[in-house]
Amino acid sequence: MAAVGSEKTGSAAVMAEGVATAQVAADLSSLVAAEVTRQVAALRSELDQAIAELRERTPEDRAALVVFSGDLDRVLAAFVIATGAAAAGLETSIFFTFWGLSALKKKGATVAGKGFKQRMFAAMTPAGTESLGTSKLNFFGMGAVMLRSMMKEQGIASLEELMAMARDLGVKLTACTMSMDAMGIAKEELLDGLGYGGVAAFMADASRARVALFI
Amino acid sequence: MAAVGSEKTGSAAVMAEGVATAQVAADLSSLVAAEVTRQVAALRSELDQAIAELRERTPEDRAALVVFSGDLDRVLAAFVIATGAAAAGLETSIFFTFWGLSALKKKGATVAGKGFKQRMFAAMTPAGTESLGTSKLNFFGMGAVMLRSMMKEQGIASLEELMAMARDLGVKLTACTMSMDAMGIAKEELLDGLGYGGVAAFMADASRARVALFI
Amino acid sequence: MAAVGSEKTGSAAVMAEGVATAQVAADLSSLVAAEVTRQVAALRSELDQAIAELRERTPEDRAALVVFSGDLDRVLAAFVIATGAAAAGLETSIFFTFWGLSALKKKGATVAGKGFKQRMFAAMTPAGTESLGTSKLNFFGMGAVMLRSMMKEQGIASLEELMAMARDLGVKLTACTMSMDAMGIAKEELLDGLGYGGVAAFMADASRARVALFI
Repeated sequence: MAAVGSEKTGSAAVMAEGVATAQVAADLSSLVAAEVTRQVAALRSELDQAIAELRERTPEDRAALVVFSGDLDRVLAAFVIATGAAAAGLETSIFFTFWGLSALKKKGATVAGKGFKQRMFAAMTPAGTESLGTSKLNFFGMGAVMLRSMMKEQGIASLEELMAMARDLGVKLTACTMSMDAMGIAKEELLDGLGYGGVAAFMADASRARVALFI
Repeated sequence: MAAVGSEKTGSAAVMAEGVATAQVAADLSSLVAAEVTRQVAALRSELDQAIAELRERTPEDRAALVVFSGDLDRVLAAFVIATGAAAAGLETSIFFTFWGLSALKKKGATVAGKGFKQRMFAAMTPAGTESLGTSKLNFFGMGAVMLRSMMKEQGIASLEELMAMARDLGVKLTACTMSMDAMGIAKEELLDGLGYGGVAAFMADASRARVALFI
Repeated sequence: MAAVGSEKTGSAAVMAEGVATAQVAADLSSLVAAEVTRQVAALRSELDQAIAELRERTPEDRAALVVFSGDLDRVLAAFVIATGAAAAGLETSIFFTFWGLSALKKKGATVAGKGFKQRMFAAMTPAGTESLGTSKLNFFGMGAVMLRSMMKEQGIASLEELMAMARDLGVKLTACTMSMDAMGIAKEELLDGLGYGGVAAFMADASRARVALFI
């Protein structure tokens, strides 16, 4: 009886132990998982921070151009690069400043109430893409006519076609408001659908871009 | 008695098991720690290396400009961008080369012992910011006078004010020593507080910069 | 007997427990190892992906220049920067477009069958590095002669020496095919050993570069 009792007790203990062991095993798994998670969390957070710091300074898939020049050849180069960048998958923006604003002028738009100097500047700067001259060999516009004609013969897109292409590809065009103020250019004189901003707008794009060029 | 004995034995086993479980829990932490340390050390070292390689090539919060041009409008654009970059928190440097050195000339400084060609170059290039002409429509300085006057009317900072602002913002101005040699320009002719260096100095800044522009 | 029985039972339980604990300890080690392996693998894969995404956007040790200008001073600046970049360990490429192609012209090379406008353009643009003028103070070539002479006196490398140096340093020179088409320039007129490509070729280099400049 005692033997039976002890056997019973023994088997009860083994059973209890079996249950406890199963419980321990189950607990253990989650205990281990939790402890590993806890200990790995420190590493994860450390590396996440290192990666976040890099990410903040890693260029995005962007290109940002400044078009300072109002020369036909340079504006052409800018739009060839911009459409090339957009076609390569980069979010592309062009910031037009100083003489570059001439490329954004709406044909035939005039604004009343300009000062004398502003009117003089307007009279002496191109009134839209079709009046842009070349930076070299312009000869009062002959260089531009020749360049355009040679490009057409070769089936190369014109500036106006490139600008339309750029807009279709989602290239963002921004007019420099400080230059507009300095030169007395009103929004009504410029193309529709432009963005407006100062140097801060350009820096915001350029400092995140893979490619930033001053043209 | 046997039942009691077996109960006692049972509770002893549970107690022993409790101790063992506590021991297991204590062991677990150090076991996990050891295993995490072992396995994570490899991961950490591998990722640290990958991150270090990226970090070495990740742009710093810097902007680096080359001012090649000595035209008032382009030098103005450079300082607008430089102050904008510095205001946006970027450590900004401008490297002045070729014609750009004109913007750094101290008013009225002359140096003896120059060769004929150096004197001719000096005579024909602007002797400081106030003599800079515009790249277009300059008409022997009228363009610069008009541009300055139009900017003033609009409350836009003058080049001299922008240069002072740049210095206040900690923008580093460096004169290209190779250009100084080529053009026969001495340090005495340039503003105080400049840095001096060659292309290696520019590349050191530019290759770490978020934005590098040639103006 | 009962007591002995219970003692026996007790010691059996303790022994069984000892075995179980040893088993648990053994199991624990592999449990921990497995869990750490699992979690570390997850972390590794997560971080590897984050790092791969960054790496894809992190600049490589490259510099990419566009030489748009055909002015001696600007082409000189381009080659000074290119050799500086290559000397600093950057894989450097220069993309020559528009007027910049003049710098790549082989001396004395002529090609039959050009159209009138192409011949006019050829006649009015420099036929190689030795004919490049300066962007300022050129006076029909006098500026270039003076600049070259002043550089020589100072022991500064000439454009031709810089170009040879660039090639020795492995700088890749690419002629813009679209500009060649537009200006009617044939490969036979250009230096040997050039690459040929369009804007896509430039963007491929520039979007991976630490430094990209438009000159």
